[in-house]
Amino acid sequence: MEQRYPTQISMEEGMGLLLSAAVPMDKEEVRLLDASGRVLACDVAAMEDIPPFDRSPLDGYAVRAADIAAAGEDSPVTLKIIGEVPAGYVAERGPQEGEAVKILTGAPIPEGADVVVRYEDTSFTEEEVILYQAMASGSNIVRAGEDVRAGQIVMTRGDILNAARIGVLAGLGYERVTVYKRPVVKILSTGDELVPVTENLRPGKIRNSSAYMLRAFLQSWGMEAQICGIVKDDQKAIQEAIEACAEGADCVITTGGASASDRDLVLPALEAAGAQILFWKVRMKPGMATIAAQKKGTLVLGLSGNPSAAVAALLALCLPAFRKMCGRKDHQLPMIRAIMPEGFEKKSPGGRVLPGRLEIRGTTPCFITQKRQANGMISPWSDCDLIGIIPRGSGPLEKGCVIEAYSLVT
Amino acid sequence: MEQRYPTQISMEEGMGLLLSAAVPMDKEEVRLLDASGRVLACDVAAMEDIPPFDRSPLDGYAVRAADIAAAGEDSPVTLKIIGEVPAGYVAERGPQEGEAVKILTGAPIPEGADVVVRYEDTSFTEEEVILYQAMASGSNIVRAGEDVRAGQIVMTRGDILNAARIGVLAGLGYERVTVYKRPVVKILSTGDELVPVTENLRPGKIRNSSAYMLRAFLQSWGMEAQICGIVKDDQKAIQEAIEACAEGADCVITTGGASASDRDLVLPALEAAGAQILFWKVRMKPGMATIAAQKKGTLVLGLSGNPSAAVAALLALCLPAFRKMCGRKDHQLPMIRAIMPEGFEKKSPGGRVLPGRLEIRGTTPCFITQKRQANGMISPWSDCDLIGIIPRGSGPLEKGCVIEAYSLVT
Repeated sequence: MEQRYPTQISMEEGMGLLLSAAVPMDKEEVRLLDASGRVLACDVAAMEDIPPFDRSPLDGYAVRAADIAAAGEDSPVTLKIIGEVPAGYVAERGPQEGEAVKILTGAPIPEGADVVVRYEDTSFTEEEVILYQAMASGSNIVRAGEDVRAGQIVMTRGDILNAARIGVLAGLGYERVTVYKRPVVKILSTGDELVPVTENLRPGKIRNSSAYMLRAFLQSWGMEAQICGIVKDDQKAIQEAIEACAEGADCVITTGGASASDRDLVLPALEAAGAQILFWKVRMKPGMATIAAQKKGTLVLGLSGNPSAAVAALLALCLPAFRKMCGRKDHQLPMIRAIMPEGFEKKSPGGRVLPGRLEIRGTTPCFITQKRQANGMISPWSDCDLIGIIPRGSGPLEKGCVIEAYSLVT
Repeated sequence: MEQRYPTQISMEEGMGLLLSAAVPMDKEEVRLLDASGRVLACDVAAMEDIPPFDRSPLDGYAVRAADIAAAGEDSPVTLKIIGEVPAGYVAERGPQEGEAVKILTGAPIPEGADVVVRYEDTSFTEEEVILYQAMASGSNIVRAGEDVRAGQIVMTRGDILNAARIGVLAGLGYERVTVYKRPVVKILSTGDELVPVTENLRPGKIRNSSAYMLRAFLQSWGMEAQICGIVKDDQKAIQEAIEACAEGADCVITTGGASASDRDLVLPALEAAGAQILFWKVRMKPGMATIAAQKKGTLVLGLSGNPSAAVAALLALCLPAFRKMCGRKDHQLPMIRAIMPEGFEKKSPGGRVLPGRLEIRGTTPCFITQKRQANGMISPWSDCDLIGIIPRGSGPLEKGCVIEAYSLVT
């Protein structure tokens, strides 16, 4: 039978095809209070300086540098205190020749003053302050716009609104902010072997744990993931369930039935549903049995029924496309190089995707992985923040070798 | 005046005093579906194996190793196919001498079979399968309990329920799970200079951006943070507001008024409220003006009104205590060593807390920091996942020097 789609492709090809198919979400406006972790959907220019005025970073006396130019330990200068300016207020008038204004942290620099001298460096009474050293004009003054300058682009479309960025937006007076909508992903589990998580196991059955795991991964990436139940290994039932899920979803993820036997029915179901198949089968292990398709605007990912294969494909193949859907500008996972202190005993004739953890020992980035790694184990993915890529044809990896890995860190 | 609390302490001492004062939250039971990112409050033992039965990792034929012991390219062995077992079902009977059972991925190994031979390595008709090689007993069989063994402790109190752990719990049939409650933190902003984020600025005023930023940080660490408004620089008003916030909060965070001038009123307000002061002033920059106290069971943190000082104290001083309150077992931030490719031009006579970003170049972990760093800037904290600690008495840092840094990564 003629195949009208790529098959047995490389991981990079699969990732690229998914990235091409993925489309950033529409925009919506949310309260800044609800925007933490969301992805900014427009550039933000500062309408004002932060800080908005020249201010004092400490408690002291605002004076004119010219007045203390001749001051020294043996030639102190005495200035008259004409007033006090706390944070939140403006001095009635600034110092003129021979005068000083008491100033508190955060208060605006009075007009005419160009230096703030710390309390600790002075002697003072209620009426007078004595200064013992000359200081350059501008000393101890935080300039308006030092953090953010009016007109400056402070963040751009695709930035994640982390806490510091929320702070900058609040400082600029943004009460609402335009972000990308969260992609809605529906998770459909296929397989006669599956029972709901709450049920007792009967012989040959396993619980539908993949759906819970996939949902939690997707949520952690800022997506809205819904578990849509279990479908039996029946092509018509699978087709109808996919079609129903695709309505109102930006992505449908199926598990199970993605391999090549006559009981693997997700691919024929997708074809019967008129979906465009983007690819089937990727040269990665685990994760070979992966289907990607498009049904109208909805991306459909057919992952393996094997939980570790499903998560390998999700992280190493699909995540860049998800990031693009979420509106992030950094789609690709950064690829880093790390040392494997323990090596890896198994051979990887067909290549391997290996979960690991970044640990920096001394000044060496290390790829730490569980010794026990086998088909179907999901526990090694628990502390995974690196995805090691072992090339095809690799033998056992020696202690201290270098491995390339995608980084999930940030 | 006699001081009944430590002052001018080191960062490590401050961190230690906060950790001692912090108490893990009570427990609560939540649905597994709502547990993602929460902290497990009990050890979990597996009641069953995962997988629950010996299963086939591929599509093929389940046979007896003894029957194919003499098989070879030139001496193929032919076995009779007595049935088929898909995933989710149990074979009616297993193979006896000279027999094979067709088996699909995920199906339980039929009784008596001890090898699975891949389709691709056989020839077959409806009735018979021809095998061309001997295989060791146990080949291509995923053993029951390979991922998780019944009785095994699969995760322990203080583990964060990330996606893979949610998957393991689902596989074990947990519908509900016991986690630590989220600490409730109330944020109180003090200062005559502050106006709400939504207001236009008048001379000398700034927006209350710290509250938004602190709330977003606390949320990202799994805490429930509430913004409780702005209080004027009035000791009685601050005292009453702290007392009101402390009711029903596990932690109160104030900003502003934490320094030493006669307009810094948080410390006297805390003393008037009968709070036990844990410390005041920490030898760190920014972040010196930090107060820690306890009012009944509630931790009160008086942070600086300067946003960058507040965030420095929050990350470098308070975060381990927060993690302990959240129930996490890894309180301390790991300290790593990284290279500073660009160095750092400013001197740090009093030491310095410097936001940075981990980047692995080649196999070198690098501490990347913004060149422009000044008092009050929060933008350098936007991409911060390392907190560099520059020791007291440091001059400018040379290109390529090593810096120690707390890691926020994981």
